[in-house]
Amino acid sequence: MNYQDAFRSAVDKVRQEGRYRVFADLKRHRGQFPRATWTQDDGSQGDVIVWCSNDYLGQGQNPVVLDAMHKAIEEAGAGSGGTRNISGTTHYHVELEAELADLHRKEAALLFTSGYVSNEASLSTLYKVLPGLIIFSDALNHNSMISGIRAGRGERHVFRHNDLAHLEELLAAADPAAPKLIAFESVYSMDGDIADIAGTIALAKQYGALTYIDEVHAVGMYGPRGAGVAERDGVMAQIDIIEGTLGKAFGVMGGYIAADAIIVDAIRSYADGFIFTTSIPPALAAGAVASIRYLKEHNEVRIAHQERAAALKARMAKAGLPVMPSVSHIVPVEVGDPVHCKMISDILLSDYGIYVQPINYPTVPRGTERLRFTPSPAHTDDMMEDLVRALEKLWTRCNIKRVGGYAA
Amino acid sequence: MNYQDAFRSAVDKVRQEGRYRVFADLKRHRGQFPRATWTQDDGSQGDVIVWCSNDYLGQGQNPVVLDAMHKAIEEAGAGSGGTRNISGTTHYHVELEAELADLHRKEAALLFTSGYVSNEASLSTLYKVLPGLIIFSDALNHNSMISGIRAGRGERHVFRHNDLAHLEELLAAADPAAPKLIAFESVYSMDGDIADIAGTIALAKQYGALTYIDEVHAVGMYGPRGAGVAERDGVMAQIDIIEGTLGKAFGVMGGYIAADAIIVDAIRSYADGFIFTTSIPPALAAGAVASIRYLKEHNEVRIAHQERAAALKARMAKAGLPVMPSVSHIVPVEVGDPVHCKMISDILLSDYGIYVQPINYPTVPRGTERLRFTPSPAHTDDMMEDLVRALEKLWTRCNIKRVGGYAA
Repeated sequence: MNYQDAFRSAVDKVRQEGRYRVFADLKRHRGQFPRATWTQDDGSQGDVIVWCSNDYLGQGQNPVVLDAMHKAIEEAGAGSGGTRNISGTTHYHVELEAELADLHRKEAALLFTSGYVSNEASLSTLYKVLPGLIIFSDALNHNSMISGIRAGRGERHVFRHNDLAHLEELLAAADPAAPKLIAFESVYSMDGDIADIAGTIALAKQYGALTYIDEVHAVGMYGPRGAGVAERDGVMAQIDIIEGTLGKAFGVMGGYIAADAIIVDAIRSYADGFIFTTSIPPALAAGAVASIRYLKEHNEVRIAHQERAAALKARMAKAGLPVMPSVSHIVPVEVGDPVHCKMISDILLSDYGIYVQPINYPTVPRGTERLRFTPSPAHTDDMMEDLVRALEKLWTRCNIKRVGGYAA
Repeated sequence: MNYQDAFRSAVDKVRQEGRYRVFADLKRHRGQFPRATWTQDDGSQGDVIVWCSNDYLGQGQNPVVLDAMHKAIEEAGAGSGGTRNISGTTHYHVELEAELADLHRKEAALLFTSGYVSNEASLSTLYKVLPGLIIFSDALNHNSMISGIRAGRGERHVFRHNDLAHLEELLAAADPAAPKLIAFESVYSMDGDIADIAGTIALAKQYGALTYIDEVHAVGMYGPRGAGVAERDGVMAQIDIIEGTLGKAFGVMGGYIAADAIIVDAIRSYADGFIFTTSIPPALAAGAVASIRYLKEHNEVRIAHQERAAALKARMAKAGLPVMPSVSHIVPVEVGDPVHCKMISDILLSDYGIYVQPINYPTVPRGTERLRFTPSPAHTDDMMEDLVRALEKLWTRCNIKRVGGYAA
């Protein structure tokens, strides 16, 4: 058995499909986001504007967040030193879980090391604590949700994306006596569309199902206190389990669920991915608390964020760029070809100092390859102008489809 | 379907088995480890000595680590803002992976959000990149390894703990042409025993298998540069994949693998748990780099650590306490009953200011319930004296077996 060849062949396959990833080495500079320094393999450096960060609101450089982190390091040191049960529950973790429960107006919350782990651990564990559970999962749910649902090995049905008629069909066909759970997201991050949460809840009630919503691309950004789209839509209390992240709009790292105390206690007691891992450092918990509190009280950040997204969409539409019909803060622009998509991204970085990653298959379906822009309140009109001009040039150069037909 | 009842019944089951966890709310104080403040539910506070931290060397309060974290926060802010591929690879991550590769003298290293995720993602992914792979797994491997192996859904065989004869039997019975991997740990954290790494490598070579070793309870603590037991034993170069953590002896958070560049590239390209998650904050990467560099050069910390563990074992043996035959820095003391184990732990905390968690089934087999002590270089002779005296009293009070027979 030649293992080197086997590993090489696996990597070659990714290369042949045009999916081989080369990570851009970036260094952000506190106070100057979205500016960053890009270091190339040969050691040369250049300034870039980051257009694809999930630090959607720039909280990763908010002084209240950084001060809280510094303070916690000074008080309690670096890591937590253990799992939650074995010396790794600090006062910072307790405080953060209380803050998260309050944010979502739920009885309790449970902290995980990441949003990925919170989905994977919670969904797989729900099969354990609810024997016979059937999960109904939106077709575009994130990899972490799919991974958790698969790991649970129970019955599962996938409904067409945001298609409540299909969901109802599947619910109606299932054993009425079986426990059921509908797993979906609020904001889908690659298209920027938003689920009909109220409609999903209505179906859940009709068919006796629990609801599990992933709000990772919404917490901090939607609702009067930044609790997400379910808060904005006035239906948060009717969602059974809300999952969120501390690593995107809150600007730090970590994931969580918020729910009734008994649901949280059951997942806390059975989820291997929660039990057997070192808890997050006190400084991250403290930074997250500060960030959540700040965003609860600063709705103007959310208003500025939405304005920036709308402004970029308008500029792009005016320039005839094929901006996709997103109803959220996410601005996807369709390229429709993986090679062009990668090429445009490479040229933007090397020639224009504009950093945006190409989004290709399997993250999105073939033929819908795209660039995905995430304007933040820190992205200025001038930055948008530079971006749109660069895209116009590249669209012409690469002869890519614009709105209403192909370019000459 | 009454979901509340279903969740309650799941939690009740854990309670009935005596496995319900109540997390102690602790606050460590920088510079004073292993001292901490314990906050009870009623808000009252008390000082405790932490005897069960996995911050084995106190690096979580080492000023070089904290300074590096402060500096990174000042330079680059809080979170990384994205997955490794989408704006989340910072210069700190690149530097840390180079440092880890150097530590283990491998071509490359790959950073994960935790040790748990590094095992789960790497092992499940190896099944993907090596079609037909058979994994041979030690019976006492950590939950994260088991979880990864199960998620991979390929052929797997469990060999009796540290039983190379059994491992060979299984290897010999397998298809000679199939790719194979032996997955094991160096230090097993609940017993403190250490694998025969050289013997395992010899079998791997004989049967054409790869080796995957989990050194999470050894990195920083064994070997002249703190690369683990494989380094100490002079066999590190012959291990194919080394997995470690930044959350125990290195005092921060995160996990990793180190291996040939092509192996790392294959796992990097296929591991969902690596690809689809926000990378760790720059401050954690910077703190980890500082910690690894410090421990590479400060062998005296490892010597002090081993001396403290030996001193505690000697004191306990002298007092007739049933300290288990650990050959590592881990000091397990057998209680042999889950109720007594929990009770002793509770009384130690409430009456003696000594914090150690009971280790009960399913973490260890029934009948071998134990207390697991992890003395660090910061645990003084006086602290040990207090601990041994308290244990002696409780052993008598609870009428627990001592060395050589039952107490009166």
